[in-house]
Amino acid sequence: MINKHGFASDNNSGVHPAILQAIMEANQGHTLAYGEDMYTEKAKALFRELLGTDVEVFFVFNGTAANVLGLQAATQRHNAVICAETAHINVDECGAPERITGCKLLTVKTPDGKLTPSLVSTQMHGFGFQHHSQPKVISISQASELGTVYTPEEVKSLSDFAHSHGLYLHMDGTRITNAAVSQSCSLKEISGDAGVDVLSFGGTKNGLMYGEAVVFFNSSIAKDFMYTRKQDLQLASKMRFISAQFIAYLSNNQWATTARHSNQMARLLADKLRRFSAVKISQKVQVNEVLAIIPPEIIPELQKEYFFYIWDEATSEVRLMTSWDTTEEDIDRFTEILEKLLKKFNML
Amino acid sequence: MINKHGFASDNNSGVHPAILQAIMEANQGHTLAYGEDMYTEKAKALFRELLGTDVEVFFVFNGTAANVLGLQAATQRHNAVICAETAHINVDECGAPERITGCKLLTVKTPDGKLTPSLVSTQMHGFGFQHHSQPKVISISQASELGTVYTPEEVKSLSDFAHSHGLYLHMDGTRITNAAVSQSCSLKEISGDAGVDVLSFGGTKNGLMYGEAVVFFNSSIAKDFMYTRKQDLQLASKMRFISAQFIAYLSNNQWATTARHSNQMARLLADKLRRFSAVKISQKVQVNEVLAIIPPEIIPELQKEYFFYIWDEATSEVRLMTSWDTTEEDIDRFTEILEKLLKKFNML
Amino acid sequence: MINKHGFASDNNSGVHPAILQAIMEANQGHTLAYGEDMYTEKAKALFRELLGTDVEVFFVFNGTAANVLGLQAATQRHNAVICAETAHINVDECGAPERITGCKLLTVKTPDGKLTPSLVSTQMHGFGFQHHSQPKVISISQASELGTVYTPEEVKSLSDFAHSHGLYLHMDGTRITNAAVSQSCSLKEISGDAGVDVLSFGGTKNGLMYGEAVVFFNSSIAKDFMYTRKQDLQLASKMRFISAQFIAYLSNNQWATTARHSNQMARLLADKLRRFSAVKISQKVQVNEVLAIIPPEIIPELQKEYFFYIWDEATSEVRLMTSWDTTEEDIDRFTEILEKLLKKFNML
Amino acid sequence: MINKHGFASDNNSGVHPAILQAIMEANQGHTLAYGEDMYTEKAKALFRELLGTDVEVFFVFNGTAANVLGLQAATQRHNAVICAETAHINVDECGAPERITGCKLLTVKTPDGKLTPSLVSTQMHGFGFQHHSQPKVISISQASELGTVYTPEEVKSLSDFAHSHGLYLHMDGTRITNAAVSQSCSLKEISGDAGVDVLSFGGTKNGLMYGEAVVFFNSSIAKDFMYTRKQDLQLASKMRFISAQFIAYLSNNQWATTARHSNQMARLLADKLRRFSAVKISQKVQVNEVLAIIPPEIIPELQKEYFFYIWDEATSEVRLMTSWDTTEEDIDRFTEILEKLLKKFNML
Repeated sequence: MINKHGFASDNNSGVHPAILQAIMEANQGHTLAYGEDMYTEKAKALFRELLGTDVEVFFVFNGTAANVLGLQAATQRHNAVICAETAHINVDECGAPERITGCKLLTVKTPDGKLTPSLVSTQMHGFGFQHHSQPKVISISQASELGTVYTPEEVKSLSDFAHSHGLYLHMDGTRITNAAVSQSCSLKEISGDAGVDVLSFGGTKNGLMYGEAVVFFNSSIAKDFMYTRKQDLQLASKMRFISAQFIAYLSNNQWATTARHSNQMARLLADKLRRFSAVKISQKVQVNEVLAIIPPEIIPELQKEYFFYIWDEATSEVRLMTSWDTTEEDIDRFTEILEKLLKKFNML
Repeated sequence: MINKHGFASDNNSGVHPAILQAIMEANQGHTLAYGEDMYTEKAKALFRELLGTDVEVFFVFNGTAANVLGLQAATQRHNAVICAETAHINVDECGAPERITGCKLLTVKTPDGKLTPSLVSTQMHGFGFQHHSQPKVISISQASELGTVYTPEEVKSLSDFAHSHGLYLHMDGTRITNAAVSQSCSLKEISGDAGVDVLSFGGTKNGLMYGEAVVFFNSSIAKDFMYTRKQDLQLASKMRFISAQFIAYLSNNQWATTARHSNQMARLLADKLRRFSAVKISQKVQVNEVLAIIPPEIIPELQKEYFFYIWDEATSEVRLMTSWDTTEEDIDRFTEILEKLLKKFNML
Repeated sequence: MINKHGFASDNNSGVHPAILQAIMEANQGHTLAYGEDMYTEKAKALFRELLGTDVEVFFVFNGTAANVLGLQAATQRHNAVICAETAHINVDECGAPERITGCKLLTVKTPDGKLTPSLVSTQMHGFGFQHHSQPKVISISQASELGTVYTPEEVKSLSDFAHSHGLYLHMDGTRITNAAVSQSCSLKEISGDAGVDVLSFGGTKNGLMYGEAVVFFNSSIAKDFMYTRKQDLQLASKMRFISAQFIAYLSNNQWATTARHSNQMARLLADKLRRFSAVKISQKVQVNEVLAIIPPEIIPELQKEYFFYIWDEATSEVRLMTSWDTTEEDIDRFTEILEKLLKKFNML
Repeated sequence: MINKHGFASDNNSGVHPAILQAIMEANQGHTLAYGEDMYTEKAKALFRELLGTDVEVFFVFNGTAANVLGLQAATQRHNAVICAETAHINVDECGAPERITGCKLLTVKTPDGKLTPSLVSTQMHGFGFQHHSQPKVISISQASELGTVYTPEEVKSLSDFAHSHGLYLHMDGTRITNAAVSQSCSLKEISGDAGVDVLSFGGTKNGLMYGEAVVFFNSSIAKDFMYTRKQDLQLASKMRFISAQFIAYLSNNQWATTARHSNQMARLLADKLRRFSAVKISQKVQVNEVLAIIPPEIIPELQKEYFFYIWDEATSEVRLMTSWDTTEEDIDRFTEILEKLLKKFNML
C-alpha cells in the first residue's frame, strides 16, 4: 500500500511521529478507564496552561462530535444557531447538529467564509416570538472553511455582539492552530481572550490520530457535559490514548510546529500556482488551504494524478489542502503535472 | 506513572503489542479519509471471511455507539427493545439507547444475565395497539454482563422466536471473542449462524485501542447506516487506524489468543477464590469475569490495594475482570492480599 | 348512531353541556390566535385563583402532551424520571416520554399504583456517575391508574423527599379532580400546597372536549415552555376554545360536581359488585374506577354487552370506569347482565 | 368581549355554525375513544370519496403536527426536505420539523412563494455522499404563504421531478380549499391526481375549531403512522369531535362555500386597495390573502384600528388575510380608515 501525499484533505495524512510515540509510551499497564486516569489529568492541565486556569476540557472522538456537543451545551432544543452558509456544521455533517441538538441552523451568506456582526444581524429577529426558533449561539470557524482567519479583534466584535444580545459564541476550531500561527497569536488570544464561550479544539487534521477537545471558557454551560458526552456516544473507554496525544500535542509547541509547516506549504503552493495565468487564487491563503480556479478541462486530468475536491462546480474552483507532512517535493511534483496539462491544453 | 494490573475492568488494560504494531505500520503517507482506504477494505474482507460473505460491516468509535446505532438500524422510533434488566444498554449507557433511537427498553429479570424465549414472552404484548411501543428487537449480550455465555442453540432459540414474531435479534458482542473461545466455537457459530441480525463486535476490551464494528448479517437493515453513522457522530476521519487494528485482530487468531488467555486467568482466579470458605463464586465463570461474594468487611480494605467494582451492595457481590494482560502473578498477589485480610478478620 | 354508556373509559363519554355552552359563547367574532386572547387570560386567572397566584399555566391539546411536556420542562436529556411500573407514562404512551424528552424511565413496582419515598429510594442511585441517567423527577398519578389517591401528607412526603435530593415532583393529574373530591380537599391542597412542582391538569376525562393544562408551581422551570410547546406541536391556533372550556370548568365548581358524580357512580358500582361472591373488588375504590376480579368465563360474554378493558389477564382483573354521565340505570343494567351470566355459569 | 373582524389571520376567526352544529350533534352518549368510533369512520369515508379510494387518513390536532408528522412519515432522520425559504415549515414552526423529524431543511429563494423543478434543482446534490443530508422530500404549500397557487400542471411537474429522483412530494394544504376554488379545480386534481404523496389537509383556517388531517396518497409511507401519531402527542382521546367537524366540512361543499367566500373578500379588498396610488399589491391575489406595500408612516396608525402583520419591514409590505366570516362592511370600514390616513399624510 503506497500512500502518496496528496492535497485532498489534511485528514488524509497520518499521525505525526511525536504523537505516535506518546501513544506508545502511554501503553503501560492498567489505568482507570473513562477519563479517570493521570494522562487525562495532565492533558487537561496543559489545556489550562495554554487557555486559562478556568477552562473546562472534555475529550470526544471527532470533530463532528466536538462541534455538535459544544453547541448542544450552549442551547436548548428550541434555539437557533447562526452560522455561515459555508460552515462545516451546515454543509458536511449530514444534519448532525439539527438531529442531535434539535436546534435550527440559520445561515448567512458570506464572501470569505467569515461572519461579522452586521452579517449576523440579518438573522437576529423573532426574539420572544413563540413561533420562531430563538437564536442562542453564533458559530464561527477559525480558520474558516475558505482558509481565511479571524483576527482577535474580529472575534471580539462577534463575542461582544453575541453577549450583548444574550447569545454565546461558539468557535469551530478544527484548524485553530493554523489560525493562531498564521497571525503569530497565541491560541488563547484568538479564542477565550476574544470572548469565545465554547471551542471545538481540533487536532486530528494537524497530526493526531483521533480525538478532539471541547473547551468551555464559560464553565456555566459545561455543567452537564459529562452526562451528555456519554449519552451522545462520545465517552472513550481507554481515554488515556486520546489524552496522551494531547499531552504531546500541547508540549514543546508541537501543535505550532506542524501548523506552521502546513501553512507554509500552502503559501508555497499558492505562490507556484500564481505563476500560471490560467489559474486564479480565489481566497486569501492564510492557513493550510488554497482555493483556486483551475480551467475545467484540466481538473479531471489532474485528479487522476492527485485526488482533490471541487469546491464550486459552477466557477471551476477547487480546494487544495496541505498538511503537516506535505513536502516541497510534493508541491513541485503537483505543479509540474499541472504545468504539463496547461501546456497540453495551450493554457500556459 | 506506574500502572498496576488490576481487576476492575478489561477497559483498564492497554493495547496489545500486535495491535499497536499494526497501527504503526498503517502510518504511511496519505490515504483517503472516512473509510475509503485500503485498510478498511481489507478489514471488511477479513470480517467477511470470518462471519460470512454477505455481512455488512461498519466501524464506529466505541461500544456505546455500536450498540445504539445497531439497535437504531433495526428499529423505528415507536418500537421497543426487549433486554435483560442487567443489560449494559439498560444500566450503563446514561440513557443513550432511548435518547438516540427514541425507543423504549422493556426489561426482563433474569437470574444469570441471559434471556430465553420464555422470559422474553413476558414483554411480547401490545402488538398493533397504538398506545404501546411495538417490540421490534430482542437484545442479548454475548457474553452476558454476568459472565455467562449463550450456546449456539440458545441463540438460535431466541432468533427463531424473534423472527417468528417479526422481531430482530441484536447481539451486544462486547466480549463475543471470550464467548466463542469459552465454547470452542467459531465467532460465526454463536452469532450469524445462530440467527443474529445485527452484532456489535467489540475489540477494545480485548486489546484494541479504540474502535468497534457493527456487523449486519441481515443487510436489509444496513441500507442507511453510512448516513446515520455520520449523523450520530461516529464517522472517523482517519479510519485506517481503526481498520488496521481490526486487520491485526482478525489475523492469526489474535482475537482468540488474547480472549483465551483472559478466560483462563478468570478461571484461575475463581479456582483460587474457591479455596476460601468465606468467598462464594456467584455465577458460572465462562469468560473473563468472576462474580464473587466477599465479606463486606473485607471489601474496602481490598479495594485500597486493587480497585474493583461492587456488583450488588445488598449481597456483597463484587465483579472481578481479567484481561489479555493479566498474569498469574497478578492473581497470586491479589489472592495473597485477600488471604491476609481474611485472616485479619478471622475468616479463613 | 346510538351510543350506549359503557364502562370502558371516561374518555368514551361526551362533553358536558355546560362546557359545550361555553364553547358556543366563545364563538363570537375574531380574537387573536395562539393564546393572546381574553378567554385565555381569564382561564389562567381562574387557575391562579384556585392554585395560587404564582402558578404559570399553559394549555396543550391532550394528556399525553401535558405529561410529556411537563416532564421535559423539568429535565435535561440525560435525566431519569422515576415512576410506578403501572404509570400511564410508562405503559400507555407508545414511548412518548422517552422519545420526546430523551430521558429514561426508572420504574418501581407498587401494590396499589402509589409511590412512597421508600419505594422511590430503590431507584435513587448513580448520582454523579457519568454512565447513569441522573434521576431528576419523581412522577406520580393523582389519582393513580389503580383508582387510589394520595393524601396531601403522602404527596408532601414525596415532594420533601424529591426536593431534599434535588429532584422535582411531577403530578399526572388526569383525574386530579376526582382525587380532590374523594378526599374533600381543594385542588391546591393535594398538589401545589403539598409540594408538587409541575402538574398535568386534566379535564377531558371529566367532561371537556379537548385541552389540558400544564401548571407550574415552580415557575423557574416554565421559562422556555412557550417555545417547546410550539416546537412539540402543541400550540393551538384557536386557543380560545380550549380556554373557554376551562373557564366553565373552573367556574361554579363545575369540575367538582362532575367528579363527585362519577366517583359516586363508581362506589355504587362497587357496592353492587360486592354482592356477588364470585366477584372481588381488588383495589380501594376512591375515584371513578373499579378494579375487580371477575371469573374469566364471564368476561367475554359480558364484553359483548359492554366493552371494557382487561387489566390483568393472569388474575382475571378488569377495569371499570364510570364517568360524569354514568347513571344509576347504567349500573343497574350492567349488574343485571352480570348477574344473569353468573347464574348461567352457576356462580351466584 | 367584543371581537371585531380583522385582517391579521384567518386563525383569528371563530367556528362556522355548520361545524359547531356538527359538534353538538356528535355529543351523544358514549363512543369508543382514540378514533375507533363511527364518526371517524364516516369522516374517513368522505375523504376517500373526495380524494380517492386508496387514501389513508389520520386526524391530528393542528397544522404544525400535520406538516411535521407527514414529513416524518416520508423521511428517515438523515434526510433533507427541500422547501421555499418562505415556507411556513421553515419560518414559523419554532424548529419543529428539524427537532421532531431530525431532518435538515434545505431552502430555496423564490419570488412568489412557489417552487419549480428548476429552483429545487439547486438543492439536489450530495446523493450517496455520507456527509450530506440526503434529499427525500420536496415540500410545497398550496396555497403558498404569499397567497399564490399551484396549477395542477405545476404540481405535476414537481411530483414528476421528485419521483424521478426518488423523492416524495409533500403538500402543506393549510389553505388547500382556497387553492382549489381559486382555480375551479377539485381538491383531488390539485393534490393526489397531480402526484402528491402526502398532504396536510387543513380546516382550522376555514371554519373548523381544531383538527387537521394527514392524507397519504402513497399508503406505503403511512404504515407506522398510528404509532408515531401517538408517540408524537397527537392522538385525540375524544376523536369523534374532530371527525364530526370534518364530516360537516366535507359534506354539502361546506369547505368550498367558505373558501370561495374568503377568496372573494380578498379580491374585493385588493380591488379597493388598488384605487390608492400609494398602495401597491405586491403578489397575485389568488386566495384569501393580500400582500400589499403600504407607506410606512401609515402602518402603525392603521394597526391601532386593525391589527395585522408586517410581512417585510424593509419593503413596507403587509399581509392582510380575509376569512370565512369577513364581510363587505369589514372591508369598507378598513379601506375608509386607510383612506383617511392616506389623506392625513397627503398620500391620496
